[in-house]
Amino acid sequence: MITIQQQDAYRRQATEYFSTRAGLVITPEEKNRIEIADFGLGDFEHTGLAVLVYVNTERCCAKELAMLPRQTCPEHVHPPVGADPGKEETFRCRWGTVYLYVPGPPTARPHARPPQGSEAHYTVRHEVVLRPGGQYTLPPDTLHWFQSGPRGAVVSEFSTRSLDEKDVFTDARIARVTRVVG
Amino acid sequence: MITIQQQDAYRRQATEYFSTRAGLVITPEEKNRIEIADFGLGDFEHTGLAVLVYVNTERCCAKELAMLPRQTCPEHVHPPVGADPGKEETFRCRWGTVYLYVPGPPTARPHARPPQGSEAHYTVRHEVVLRPGGQYTLPPDTLHWFQSGPRGAVVSEFSTRSLDEKDVFTDARIARVTRVVG
Repeated sequence: MITIQQQDAYRRQATEYFSTRAGLVITPEEKNRIEIADFGLGDFEHTGLAVLVYVNTERCCAKELAMLPRQTCPEHVHPPVGADPGKEETFRCRWGTVYLYVPGPPTARPHARPPQGSEAHYTVRHEVVLRPGGQYTLPPDTLHWFQSGPRGAVVSEFSTRSLDEKDVFTDARIARVTRVVG
Repeated sequence: MITIQQQDAYRRQATEYFSTRAGLVITPEEKNRIEIADFGLGDFEHTGLAVLVYVNTERCCAKELAMLPRQTCPEHVHPPVGADPGKEETFRCRWGTVYLYVPGPPTARPHARPPQGSEAHYTVRHEVVLRPGGQYTLPPDTLHWFQSGPRGAVVSEFSTRSLDEKDVFTDARIARVTRVVG
């Protein structure tokens, strides 16, 4: 849960990440519809993500993500939905650093740690480091989570149709749709 | 047809458009695989496009396009291919100006003109003006062409799978695959 005032402040901050840091032009209309996702945990600065959806049709989707320093997008999977095999997505780092974790041999000395107290809800530990110009394509139905580096990050996401409400999080406390209160 | 020397020079120029003008970070590996598309007409600076493909899977695709001042991407359509209804694409202007032409009422005083001598191969005349932060989603199987403004342009393209070789151009002289000679 976040307040309208928090949402406004985090939207301004995300706009600064997109515009000043990553040099991306976004419109005033877009600024006012940036999603401030707290995943229902009410701790946005640690577990959260600012999301600007450019386009999301039946077939494809493009977004920008802004992350505060050491902010985490919690572990989840995009499962098959009906005839759809699940969302396939490519992350491309535009600014800052992102540590992405996917299935595979656990990385011995990872750059990121799961948020304190939530370690049990982070099960994949193979690290992919993305710096500006770096990208990674994630097949559908694949567990993943990611955390930004010490300065935060801006990441472009190119994918098939996005159905956020169908995402399955490892942490059962998570609700993908953020509640905003007045 | 273009020479390897021309390809190198146009790649350097496109890299400058992506990096310096639009502020996008691209890697040295990417710089060296920018496609310099002359559509077989051998007149790249008037009819052509520099294309960097970030990702192109069976399901979705993301590219950056760099256009010199008043450069034209010639009229074409992405037709259905087998069970695929045809490529759907969203253009988002990152830098400069793009004039996009699609089916609809002809615009009375359009900003762009088809390349001289090729007017007959440009049949859709409804203008959409895209400036930085502006975008337009084109349904599959829809005729379109576009031209950059007086300073050129950088445009992101988000789409379903890209099968350039299946594109159908209004101008039958056009070959989508550029021949590069030594």
